[in-house]
Amino acid sequence: MKNIIVDSYEEMSDLAAAIVKAEMCKDKRNNISITAGASPRGMYVELVKWYRKYKSYAGNTFFYNFDELEPLSGGDGITYQELNKEFYTPAGVEKDQIRRLTYANYKEYDEMIASEGGLDLMVIGLGADGHFCGNLPYATDFLKETYVLEIKKEYPWYEFVAGLLPEGELPSYHVTMGLQSLLKVRHLVLIANGKQKAEAVKTLFESEITTDFPASGLKLHPNLTILLDKDAASLIS
Amino acid sequence: MKNIIVDSYEEMSDLAAAIVKAEMCKDKRNNISITAGASPRGMYVELVKWYRKYKSYAGNTFFYNFDELEPLSGGDGITYQELNKEFYTPAGVEKDQIRRLTYANYKEYDEMIASEGGLDLMVIGLGADGHFCGNLPYATDFLKETYVLEIKKEYPWYEFVAGLLPEGELPSYHVTMGLQSLLKVRHLVLIANGKQKAEAVKTLFESEITTDFPASGLKLHPNLTILLDKDAASLIS
Amino acid sequence: MKNIIVDSYEEMSDLAAAIVKAEMCKDKRNNISITAGASPRGMYVELVKWYRKYKSYAGNTFFYNFDELEPLSGGDGITYQELNKEFYTPAGVEKDQIRRLTYANYKEYDEMIASEGGLDLMVIGLGADGHFCGNLPYATDFLKETYVLEIKKEYPWYEFVAGLLPEGELPSYHVTMGLQSLLKVRHLVLIANGKQKAEAVKTLFESEITTDFPASGLKLHPNLTILLDKDAASLIS
Amino acid sequence: MKNIIVDSYEEMSDLAAAIVKAEMCKDKRNNISITAGASPRGMYVELVKWYRKYKSYAGNTFFYNFDELEPLSGGDGITYQELNKEFYTPAGVEKDQIRRLTYANYKEYDEMIASEGGLDLMVIGLGADGHFCGNLPYATDFLKETYVLEIKKEYPWYEFVAGLLPEGELPSYHVTMGLQSLLKVRHLVLIANGKQKAEAVKTLFESEITTDFPASGLKLHPNLTILLDKDAASLIS
Repeated sequence: MKNIIVDSYEEMSDLAAAIVKAEMCKDKRNNISITAGASPRGMYVELVKWYRKYKSYAGNTFFYNFDELEPLSGGDGITYQELNKEFYTPAGVEKDQIRRLTYANYKEYDEMIASEGGLDLMVIGLGADGHFCGNLPYATDFLKETYVLEIKKEYPWYEFVAGLLPEGELPSYHVTMGLQSLLKVRHLVLIANGKQKAEAVKTLFESEITTDFPASGLKLHPNLTILLDKDAASLIS
Repeated sequence: MKNIIVDSYEEMSDLAAAIVKAEMCKDKRNNISITAGASPRGMYVELVKWYRKYKSYAGNTFFYNFDELEPLSGGDGITYQELNKEFYTPAGVEKDQIRRLTYANYKEYDEMIASEGGLDLMVIGLGADGHFCGNLPYATDFLKETYVLEIKKEYPWYEFVAGLLPEGELPSYHVTMGLQSLLKVRHLVLIANGKQKAEAVKTLFESEITTDFPASGLKLHPNLTILLDKDAASLIS
Repeated sequence: MKNIIVDSYEEMSDLAAAIVKAEMCKDKRNNISITAGASPRGMYVELVKWYRKYKSYAGNTFFYNFDELEPLSGGDGITYQELNKEFYTPAGVEKDQIRRLTYANYKEYDEMIASEGGLDLMVIGLGADGHFCGNLPYATDFLKETYVLEIKKEYPWYEFVAGLLPEGELPSYHVTMGLQSLLKVRHLVLIANGKQKAEAVKTLFESEITTDFPASGLKLHPNLTILLDKDAASLIS
Repeated sequence: MKNIIVDSYEEMSDLAAAIVKAEMCKDKRNNISITAGASPRGMYVELVKWYRKYKSYAGNTFFYNFDELEPLSGGDGITYQELNKEFYTPAGVEKDQIRRLTYANYKEYDEMIASEGGLDLMVIGLGADGHFCGNLPYATDFLKETYVLEIKKEYPWYEFVAGLLPEGELPSYHVTMGLQSLLKVRHLVLIANGKQKAEAVKTLFESEITTDFPASGLKLHPNLTILLDKDAASLIS
């Protein structure tokens, strides 16, 4: 893995956006998976601006979401909603360039990705509790491609996940790409920023490979870039 | 991972040899790492015959050994000795196409491999106790590239390793490429044959990722082919 | 380019089959394009035998034909007919693993290939007149991906092409992948055997890049293996 | 090929710099070849700033120059001098990360590149006369890897080349990577800006493959990005 510490959130966001743009410039189909959440917001500001302007050149780029939590009463899952709000809608990404992971299609998701050439690039965040994508502590299985995790009250993250949906809408499981799916991605970029992530970053670097801290498994990736701002790196440097 | 079960040791050997030959035919530098031991003997019979005949076309192929155990009094390690006997010498591989892993160079081995373009193909065996390369049960560290493992009397494999060298020649450690090194190999092929491997194959398929059975970690490889004869697969099919 | 001269047609066929089998063993989707014609017949004998036996492991392999000539009255084109007879039917390849190039879909063929991950391997023959795929002398355009070539009486190959179809069935054009399509294939293998190809092989090696001898353009491929038997190589070695 | 037209030289420079930075972030050895000349100056401004600040993360990046013209009396060639001035020195690139093409080593240059893993990225300019790297009109040979071109008075570019060196220092030939070398580069980026390049850009798009306009050969590259500002694209859009 390659660890890069930059001076500020702005520089982290610019570099992450540069990596996505560079992929989109290639003269081939480009399959990209990008995270929702707070960390990539700066990256999206830059990408939205660029994509809107030059979307006529983006016809060979496809976006895949990597986890989903769907409300019980149906409708869009929260990952798709957030990607839509932060990136797809403001950037003007065409519907047919978006691949959605859903409760209905998760069993065929890895095969679909393989049949479309595999993922070239994935940008993910790091949960303060060590989760990556939807692989949450204690519930993660490292030997899975895309799979479902049960949402149980005994998990420390239960309240957090429950809070993502209106009352009465919490399903009993969510879907996520697993470590096996991510290890096949050609370039994996993990971004983290801010003091509030410093402890998780430290654990990531020091931890053995354990489902207690799922992101530890990512250290096995053959082409992993960890991109941090100074604050997130404050306990390791 | 892709699991292929063929009818006989001969077919397993032929297919493994085909995979190595196909790599050598490519019009680029080809970096290959192949195992010593009993499983690949049939593959070597075929490869030696072919390589001797067509070695003038093999100038772009380089061979890297992936573990080593060196006698205390010096001289060639046992992996190199065996590769020499089974393949390099009978096939007529030139010295400058062979990269040796030694006690002296192990700290720079992964960087040297990277600077020579990375490994395209590795063919390894499966230890009956679940070891791969020199990653032996209980002593393995999944977060390492090439590293040293201590040889201690308390390990169940102590007698086996000690028996590989003349008395008084056993060092206190050996070197091996680790899981992190192997996850970077572009195509990893694990071969196993015979009833005596059937139990290990079963464990490989059923086991969680654990250093108690180091080969379990290989299941994370993004391009892994497991090639078995019927006997080795007799407990899984 | 890498030129390999083996002793016999049998060895050429075995090595070509090894290259195809090796590709099919990879743990990913494998997209392969293989030629019809006389040169690959020996390769097909070996591949048919192996594929029939182990087709349960071939679900991740897809076959793409690279040219087509369709009779005026409709029905299967002659390339598909021949691939069917020599390989698909005897080997038992499933219909959904076959991608057919047709007069109806040629404009979308390269984009379809790209959207399915690109071609990993193509095995082609060498025309005695220097044609490759359906790129015939004087009518070839090196700047094309898949395109149509007019069939005109003034071309020296007119009688040959006309003879491939029953009288009255000759269309005014045929379709083929072009040089631009082939330069994107990850590994291109050109096979040729027999004294009757020796002159063409010599021209291939000596020629400038010219549409008078279309195969000359293939020398630009970044990963080209030329696989010859002794007879085909008799004028160059 | 993928053609991207951006609004200004600044945007072109930023995007080219993003592509280089993205490559340098990968967790593997990155081999990059970048052009001297006027077009990339804006890219270097951005790269120098970034490289200086984060050069501790660039240890896995190596730079290869792609042509050279050496003064008769010895000393550094003009390409190296210019790269030194525009990038290596201000950015603080370490000497051991620089690979120089020289009159002395050109015969082994492609093999050295192959033995170091091949080139991942090359950024080149477009000559107003259609030259790329040192492949000048009428003197270019499309079937070469790195080779020498004679400098003769009858060539229309003679005065231009002669003017690059002090009087009496002009050698009779210069060295350059050829089309065959470039077709092996994993991602080729051609940049051009300004009205003074508009005619050449138009010819590039319209020309057949001909050594009269050497850059026409680049259209065969399997992963080519052409990056233009509006002015350079003014005659094609």
